[in-house]
Amino acid sequence: MIIVMNNLATEEHIDNVLKKIKEKGLQGTVSKGTEKTVIGAVGDERLLDPELLESLPGVEQALRIVKPYKIVAREWHPKDSVIDIKGHLIGGDHIQIISGPCSVETPDQMEKSANAVKAAGVKLMRGGAFKPRTSPYSFQGSGFDGLDMFRQAADKAGLPIVTELLDVRHLDIFLEQKVDVIQIGTRSMQNFELLKEVGKINIPIILKRGMSATISEWLMAAEYIASGGNHNIIFCERGIRTFETYYRNVLDVTAIPVLKKETHLPVIIDPSHAGGKAWMVAALSRAGIAAGADGLLVEMHPSPCDAWCDADQAINPEELKKLMKELTAIAKILGRSISE
Amino acid sequence: MIIVMNNLATEEHIDNVLKKIKEKGLQGTVSKGTEKTVIGAVGDERLLDPELLESLPGVEQALRIVKPYKIVAREWHPKDSVIDIKGHLIGGDHIQIISGPCSVETPDQMEKSANAVKAAGVKLMRGGAFKPRTSPYSFQGSGFDGLDMFRQAADKAGLPIVTELLDVRHLDIFLEQKVDVIQIGTRSMQNFELLKEVGKINIPIILKRGMSATISEWLMAAEYIASGGNHNIIFCERGIRTFETYYRNVLDVTAIPVLKKETHLPVIIDPSHAGGKAWMVAALSRAGIAAGADGLLVEMHPSPCDAWCDADQAINPEELKKLMKELTAIAKILGRSISE
Amino acid sequence: MIIVMNNLATEEHIDNVLKKIKEKGLQGTVSKGTEKTVIGAVGDERLLDPELLESLPGVEQALRIVKPYKIVAREWHPKDSVIDIKGHLIGGDHIQIISGPCSVETPDQMEKSANAVKAAGVKLMRGGAFKPRTSPYSFQGSGFDGLDMFRQAADKAGLPIVTELLDVRHLDIFLEQKVDVIQIGTRSMQNFELLKEVGKINIPIILKRGMSATISEWLMAAEYIASGGNHNIIFCERGIRTFETYYRNVLDVTAIPVLKKETHLPVIIDPSHAGGKAWMVAALSRAGIAAGADGLLVEMHPSPCDAWCDADQAINPEELKKLMKELTAIAKILGRSISE
Amino acid sequence: MIIVMNNLATEEHIDNVLKKIKEKGLQGTVSKGTEKTVIGAVGDERLLDPELLESLPGVEQALRIVKPYKIVAREWHPKDSVIDIKGHLIGGDHIQIISGPCSVETPDQMEKSANAVKAAGVKLMRGGAFKPRTSPYSFQGSGFDGLDMFRQAADKAGLPIVTELLDVRHLDIFLEQKVDVIQIGTRSMQNFELLKEVGKINIPIILKRGMSATISEWLMAAEYIASGGNHNIIFCERGIRTFETYYRNVLDVTAIPVLKKETHLPVIIDPSHAGGKAWMVAALSRAGIAAGADGLLVEMHPSPCDAWCDADQAINPEELKKLMKELTAIAKILGRSISE
Repeated sequence: MIIVMNNLATEEHIDNVLKKIKEKGLQGTVSKGTEKTVIGAVGDERLLDPELLESLPGVEQALRIVKPYKIVAREWHPKDSVIDIKGHLIGGDHIQIISGPCSVETPDQMEKSANAVKAAGVKLMRGGAFKPRTSPYSFQGSGFDGLDMFRQAADKAGLPIVTELLDVRHLDIFLEQKVDVIQIGTRSMQNFELLKEVGKINIPIILKRGMSATISEWLMAAEYIASGGNHNIIFCERGIRTFETYYRNVLDVTAIPVLKKETHLPVIIDPSHAGGKAWMVAALSRAGIAAGADGLLVEMHPSPCDAWCDADQAINPEELKKLMKELTAIAKILGRSISE
Repeated sequence: MIIVMNNLATEEHIDNVLKKIKEKGLQGTVSKGTEKTVIGAVGDERLLDPELLESLPGVEQALRIVKPYKIVAREWHPKDSVIDIKGHLIGGDHIQIISGPCSVETPDQMEKSANAVKAAGVKLMRGGAFKPRTSPYSFQGSGFDGLDMFRQAADKAGLPIVTELLDVRHLDIFLEQKVDVIQIGTRSMQNFELLKEVGKINIPIILKRGMSATISEWLMAAEYIASGGNHNIIFCERGIRTFETYYRNVLDVTAIPVLKKETHLPVIIDPSHAGGKAWMVAALSRAGIAAGADGLLVEMHPSPCDAWCDADQAINPEELKKLMKELTAIAKILGRSISE
Repeated sequence: MIIVMNNLATEEHIDNVLKKIKEKGLQGTVSKGTEKTVIGAVGDERLLDPELLESLPGVEQALRIVKPYKIVAREWHPKDSVIDIKGHLIGGDHIQIISGPCSVETPDQMEKSANAVKAAGVKLMRGGAFKPRTSPYSFQGSGFDGLDMFRQAADKAGLPIVTELLDVRHLDIFLEQKVDVIQIGTRSMQNFELLKEVGKINIPIILKRGMSATISEWLMAAEYIASGGNHNIIFCERGIRTFETYYRNVLDVTAIPVLKKETHLPVIIDPSHAGGKAWMVAALSRAGIAAGADGLLVEMHPSPCDAWCDADQAINPEELKKLMKELTAIAKILGRSISE
Repeated sequence: MIIVMNNLATEEHIDNVLKKIKEKGLQGTVSKGTEKTVIGAVGDERLLDPELLESLPGVEQALRIVKPYKIVAREWHPKDSVIDIKGHLIGGDHIQIISGPCSVETPDQMEKSANAVKAAGVKLMRGGAFKPRTSPYSFQGSGFDGLDMFRQAADKAGLPIVTELLDVRHLDIFLEQKVDVIQIGTRSMQNFELLKEVGKINIPIILKRGMSATISEWLMAAEYIASGGNHNIIFCERGIRTFETYYRNVLDVTAIPVLKKETHLPVIIDPSHAGGKAWMVAALSRAGIAAGADGLLVEMHPSPCDAWCDADQAINPEELKKLMKELTAIAKILGRSISE
């Protein structure tokens, strides 16, 4: 850690900082520049809180120089992690598309969805049984019955399932239903108690980025899961909140190369929630794969206009087929293969 | 709801929209302007999803005209709600300051804190037993032991306690410990399962604004609590996330007059988490009360430099005393009284 | 325009609104819903200011339903506009890459740059003679001498030039130097006096998006230019400002399909200023073209580490060549051709 | 400057960085920590560009430790600057309110405005002759005729005038008309050519914050003016752009104590443009003065509903009078005096 002293710092202030650094088991070295005095703290920086030092008189700022995340950091694990979902690989050269409806509605809708997913050559199916809705008066999902419908439809089609967990109390039933991939939604990215629980199991986790989470906070949320023992984590960029009101969120494609640099874990995008409109999905999906994403979480509904939730954002089965062709071609240019 | 058709909309498209509106139990009226055709949907707008209509061909946008919140809306409850916390009133003409340390550390620290709170004329005490921390490697709070320490120190000083609940599984022990006010933190504002649970009890709830929650989402989060039956809700503005990096968050004082217009419930601010630095607290506190806030949630530590968490943001007992004097004077100008 | 009255609106308030609407030459129609009264104003909405109506008693909000931009709107001009820059087309099926150094430094650097641009198959060259710098103590560009150096180096290589205009007083010399494309920078997007001046000439204009400009404000800025008579406008997305601090800006790829829907004019991206780091440029460039952009404005320097400005964001000549190959392949998938 | 090397940095990379530092006239010192190697550059940091160093192999990041602004920094000028506007002081203990209509409309409107300003005890008058409008089809201000009307009305009432300059070509006429305070608007905060011009005169400048300018960029914009020789600069916070859509901007009150710490120059707020609605003005004005602002720029119109621009944001003469009383009382609590 680097501690920059302000212009009014006295010798006593400097000694005081050195004392604090020593107390925490690190060693301090003072270096006086032309305009500022700077103290370097050598040792395990994670034991030292910048806030603690910034509360001391004479301190202007304290800067971390070591990254706060460890298990998820590529720095300590240079090779790409490849995650195996019932035989389907994601990460490294392997791209996976995950598709299905926003919410589970009826057995018929789920069967049609599963068939459409399969027909497009997609290997993994998504669907929401529990829906976090802004309004208490909106449809809250079909719950455990929905999860059961989903399991049955997917089993029939031979597709592993991806679904969102939003309450720690539901975890047992998710395990009973053998959910193949657990999704942690944007509103739960910093639900640390939930992260700790999914850190104890070994099912792959899709960790969506919080609506306004920084890259660093997102990596730290993954570190919560990883530090519990579960290293099967897939990051999912789903758009961030900005001042723009034309679209729901801004898909942050820059996060893709940045995460690929900072972590060895796979990174996918959700073009459906990002833009919020079906007509934007193809462009955003292509952008994501072209930028190096390891996959997509994309909403498809057998009959979008009849969807019970977010009706204007699901693409239809034909659009999914066309999109798969374009993405496969783009993946090839980058030397990668899709949904195999 | 107002549905604006685009330039390419045909008669069939218009009929289709009218059909959907009717299906949901509302009535549609078409009005053709110079450049656009507009359809009004008359009836209970809450039954109609704008997304559903926007997914139909020919529709440009669907605009709600009725507010989606009801119980918390001033529109249906023009008088200020006054909440009673063990005899201390908040709302209407009554302003309450809530103060105490960021986190519960030791019995001694809690006793000193309680005495300092009391000495400053503050009537309600805050303290965190469970701390949501960005890093899994940071101090996570002292847990139920901390809650017990807090209860004992506060009881001795005769102060009702305010503390954060971040896991539904902790609620029973919070009730056993007779927590007087439950705080829902910024990261939990859209933890809907948690909101539903605290909606079933009748203890006052402080609902912090999500880091990047809109006013409307915040009101809807309160509506989740209120729709469960608990109407004792206090909004707490704690700074929003922006592009500015000099300070942790931007305290949104505009939210104060806006919430006072939209809801009958009390509104307080948290100047400590907003700015993130002790030296900003007095200015932000005065701004909040001057803008019409019903109170403050302000961090004070008997010895800030030794705090285990956010050491640079707590004010000390002397600063709290001075602040109380300034705030009392500002309150008087506005015809209100503080901490009585 | 739709005017929504609030719950306290009286008949007198409604009459008052109708009067104002009539004064402005439109016609008002009242429709009373279950919860709200709504007034529709039929006629040329551009003559009516929503702010004016919102200042009247009893009015809750006034909503525009017609878009405020006209000449640049696809609504009134469904076919893609193709702009001709000295024989090189951009828009429709034609993609153009524009490359060169951040700033003009020396005749040698410009000659090497021009050769590298040409060698990569790029047809248009960029370079900055006047640099808007955050600090008055930073290098402010080489000015008119630089412009002259640029003109000579580009002429030798047979490349049209693109350079930024930041002061109305420079326009005459830009015209003398026969600048082929004038760039309006992000800080000038709402320098309306400058927009009016470049609206009077017929040289193609690249209009960069303001750092935090909405899509609508950006289209209106273009409308300023277009309403002066110059319809040769190219939009350039260059990253928006958000809360994220890891990268300089967030490249908003969603803006690409959205602008393609709203306007007939070409849309390019600047991957260099967006991310701010050379190692992000390839990923962002691919994302932009895959999302449907009509081109790129990308910084290349013959020796990036020696650049006088933004040294860490320029790619080198070899990287430009490799990138051109990838982009050409992606363009083909989308049925488009690059730099011809 | 502190240069942090990454894990893959070799001895050669370190030597290379040292060489660059030496080339620029500074001295480098290497310190090897447990996890990272850090290089300190001692000397005039302003000569060194962090981007330059970050482009070198092996460098993770380069951090400035000296602030980039100098003349405007309190660090080098601890005492508050007090600016004299025709005998009316602003800064130190002196608070000034500046009021008047958004735009100059007619001689009668200006005379009524001047009288209302005076009647409220306000000493300085504002009014816009040139208006930066988002749409080319909106009223663009009454121009030089308006400026003349303003001058005459203000002279009659004995009020110094404050008006916005948005084009360098207008400066001569502003000087002829003896404009007392020149306002640089939010869209011009980084119009560096304009800043350089107003740096050459010695009329007080109100420098509004850019819509999404950081504190640091704002201070640097002031440094542009100051480095030209004009040190009579008043900062004006006018709300920043965020994700919130309920109000036009978010008034950033935290900027007040922060600027008071960073600069010796006065800081005022514009509550009218911040919130965008007349009913928010009183609350925001009180918040600003309570947070320590040195004044207000507040819109008042003799008949708000008839205003030609931003009709819903001006307060009326009676509201201004009432506000002045509240602000005077708040100023007293802080040991300051208003509009004397």
